[in-house]
Amino acid sequence: MPLEDDLFEKLRLELRRGSLVLAVLGALRQERYGYTLRKSLAEAGLEIEESALYPMLRRLETQGLLTSEWREEDRRNKRFYRLSPDGAVLLGQLAAEWRAINASLDILL
Amino acid sequence: MPLEDDLFEKLRLELRRGSLVLAVLGALRQERYGYTLRKSLAEAGLEIEESALYPMLRRLETQGLLTSEWREEDRRNKRFYRLSPDGAVLLGQLAAEWRAINASLDILL
Repeated sequence: MPLEDDLFEKLRLELRRGSLVLAVLGALRQERYGYTLRKSLAEAGLEIEESALYPMLRRLETQGLLTSEWREEDRRNKRFYRLSPDGAVLLGQLAAEWRAINASLDILL
Repeated sequence: MPLEDDLFEKLRLELRRGSLVLAVLGALRQERYGYTLRKSLAEAGLEIEESALYPMLRRLETQGLLTSEWREEDRRNKRFYRLSPDGAVLLGQLAAEWRAINASLDILL
């Protein structure tokens, strides 16, 4: 039976999905607005579409993990995001979980 | 705003979900039946409930990544699973993706 064409892509996205939250929280220990956040993720090798990033940012803010504020910079209004204190705690827990999963996969692969 | 009680658990499961497929495919380079598969995952630090494992095995087999066969061992019929040749190719691709995500997170965290 041939593989579905998009199977690798589907599993790849599943693998990325959980780690993107971790990446975004990690990047927002430093305050950034949308463009500089995407840029820092892309420079680290994680491309993320605006259409995926902004809903995630809204969700993380609703969950209390981020705060945001509108501010003018270079004569343009920009929404700046930053990790909240609760977000910092959760980032620490998730990063520990990530290291544990990695240790398991190192054994299995 | 206090965090939802189950928020960490939710994000933790999201983080694990994608990596479990990778772990299962990796463990099934060697033929195993359900019990020995769960045991090898648990020994590597990845606990997975039977109620999550068996649907995943069925899905991976339907997708053409695993093959299975019933065989008697110790006077009991057991269903043995093993990575298919297509599954081995996909495992290699996913493992490469995993290493790339790790490299990105190492930069960001």
